[in-house]
Amino acid sequence: MTDAKLRDLLSSLTPMARELDALPAGRPAPDDSYVKLNTNENPFPLPSIVMRSAIAALERPYLYPENDNVSLREAAAAAYGMSADHVMAGNGSSELLSLIYRAFLAPGDSIAMISPGFSFNRKLAMLQGAQFLEVRCNELGCLPIDDLLFGPAKHAKFILLANPNNPTGAFMPVAEIERLLTQCNQLVVLDEAYIDFAPENALHLVNRFSNVLVLRTFSKSYAAAGIRVGFAFGHPELIGRLRNIQNVFNMNVVGHAVGMSILQHRRAYYENHSHIKHERQRVSGALSDFGFSVMPSHANFLLARVPAGQDGRWWQSALESQKVLVASFPDDGLEDCIRVSIGTREQMDAFLTAVGSVRRGADRSS
Amino acid sequence: MTDAKLRDLLSSLTPMARELDALPAGRPAPDDSYVKLNTNENPFPLPSIVMRSAIAALERPYLYPENDNVSLREAAAAAYGMSADHVMAGNGSSELLSLIYRAFLAPGDSIAMISPGFSFNRKLAMLQGAQFLEVRCNELGCLPIDDLLFGPAKHAKFILLANPNNPTGAFMPVAEIERLLTQCNQLVVLDEAYIDFAPENALHLVNRFSNVLVLRTFSKSYAAAGIRVGFAFGHPELIGRLRNIQNVFNMNVVGHAVGMSILQHRRAYYENHSHIKHERQRVSGALSDFGFSVMPSHANFLLARVPAGQDGRWWQSALESQKVLVASFPDDGLEDCIRVSIGTREQMDAFLTAVGSVRRGADRSS
Repeated sequence: MTDAKLRDLLSSLTPMARELDALPAGRPAPDDSYVKLNTNENPFPLPSIVMRSAIAALERPYLYPENDNVSLREAAAAAYGMSADHVMAGNGSSELLSLIYRAFLAPGDSIAMISPGFSFNRKLAMLQGAQFLEVRCNELGCLPIDDLLFGPAKHAKFILLANPNNPTGAFMPVAEIERLLTQCNQLVVLDEAYIDFAPENALHLVNRFSNVLVLRTFSKSYAAAGIRVGFAFGHPELIGRLRNIQNVFNMNVVGHAVGMSILQHRRAYYENHSHIKHERQRVSGALSDFGFSVMPSHANFLLARVPAGQDGRWWQSALESQKVLVASFPDDGLEDCIRVSIGTREQMDAFLTAVGSVRRGADRSS
Repeated sequence: MTDAKLRDLLSSLTPMARELDALPAGRPAPDDSYVKLNTNENPFPLPSIVMRSAIAALERPYLYPENDNVSLREAAAAAYGMSADHVMAGNGSSELLSLIYRAFLAPGDSIAMISPGFSFNRKLAMLQGAQFLEVRCNELGCLPIDDLLFGPAKHAKFILLANPNNPTGAFMPVAEIERLLTQCNQLVVLDEAYIDFAPENALHLVNRFSNVLVLRTFSKSYAAAGIRVGFAFGHPELIGRLRNIQNVFNMNVVGHAVGMSILQHRRAYYENHSHIKHERQRVSGALSDFGFSVMPSHANFLLARVPAGQDGRWWQSALESQKVLVASFPDDGLEDCIRVSIGTREQMDAFLTAVGSVRRGADRSS
């Protein structure tokens, strides 16, 4: 085999595949001794009835999963008050986001997103050879509808709006989203990954507006990040086109079973959501006492500007050496911030203890 | 919301999304009273040690799966004698096939496949706006290397070869594949979904040739179709580019665990493979006695030309009314054939009883 042949093959890759550098190697999973507060998981066990359905799904693993996720789509439609042709199910909402980019973006098109936002979207746009327009917030806590309506985002193929936003936790009232959907002519992709920690949701708008797709995931509020269950809701014509390009058998039988069971037992999670909102309040106060400036959050995490003297990356490392993992954002204009997920009371106590310890160390060395 | 806005949105879909009609609605899953021999599953339970690992993976379902499937890729590399950068893991090999099409095919390109073949590929090519060149076999049982090398397939971006082929069951010796890889300049995608039922495999060629990608799945020989585990093996430069465009968290924690455990316990399946090869022989003989013309098969299914008088679709319906499901291929030049998967001895007895009953009914009515 000659290298020339390989070079030819590589040069025949489509531009989208060529432009991306190799992914950075995955970081090794932290061992159990770490308090993991860096990816907004929800560290509570699944309700036992959901767990039983997951195990029951393993009874005949040799059969292919149901085609087109019919039962799961029907269950979601029933749970959320719409017809099944308004719903598609995904291997996490990340799969659904990726399908939306592939369906709507041709090379040279653009997509608009509020910045700072979920950086995965930048990669998805790049994969399509599309432009990524960032509409920056004046203040971290705001989500500027007017900038989306009247700025350069006017020419974007679609607008992506996460509500509550990640990593800021900012929330836009549903009335504002309604105004956006009424006034703009584009598709609005509304990612409601964190909506169960917020005061209200916009899902019902898919029955009134045909230019919106709402994304939901069971990774955050339903504690099933490892199972990969997500949904997209929208006008049947939009959903139908996305289903056309979806891969066969995109979810496995355990994903189906857990999805169905969570939909049936959503009430079992309400206490968990109350706990997280309560802890969010408690940790926010404690961080303020330590000299952090904490954004008001409507999600299961807090974005906090660290005390003067060190940046977010430094704090992330310092906390990691105390066996606590949080997120930092070196490239997003958030250099001075860390983001901490809200977990169990014990985890948050460990986090606050580590923060106090780091703070005292920093005071001593300055 | 106006219909005009929706029309505008739909017109802004990329051509690939527009050209496809809505998927046919998924057929309802057959109830347990049917003998399911239509999709080449392997109806044996997972080894209990594999099952235990699946259940253990549910211990912390709230954590995201490992990034980039690192452990699973390393386990597959160790099992098959290569380095981990030669391996990627997929949510079934269907996900990996789809990534290959997206990485290599731009609109107007073409891909060549031996016909009759796995029809899913036609859809994948259509999604990229690519041409689908079918290289027809003169005889159902042959896989014509020379036609691939010297015919119109010469100009295809890549050649897709399933070995053993589906739905014919035909097998091409590895020496022939080596000849193809040596003589052609294109990428050859070698789908070895059914290889464990064949006399030899070509996986080691990825260490010698950089223009081959070998696909494997655990859906057939490892009885895990419902779990969705597949692999692609190839030169690290090719694998790296495919990994670039793969979605994050493409497999769930159960997929990871089952994949790892099967790799460790492949020997536990050898008896199953022997059983299937033995049943294949027995059913082939019995079908011949009933007047079918059976292709020699190296997979876990048989393609059989039905006795004169009725076509494959008719036989499929007649067997379905006897509660036995088989596949027919109305569009593929195989109108006179049915394909039956090889399952347990009891399932195959039920199939043969149903065939006998249909045959007698057909005789009486003629």
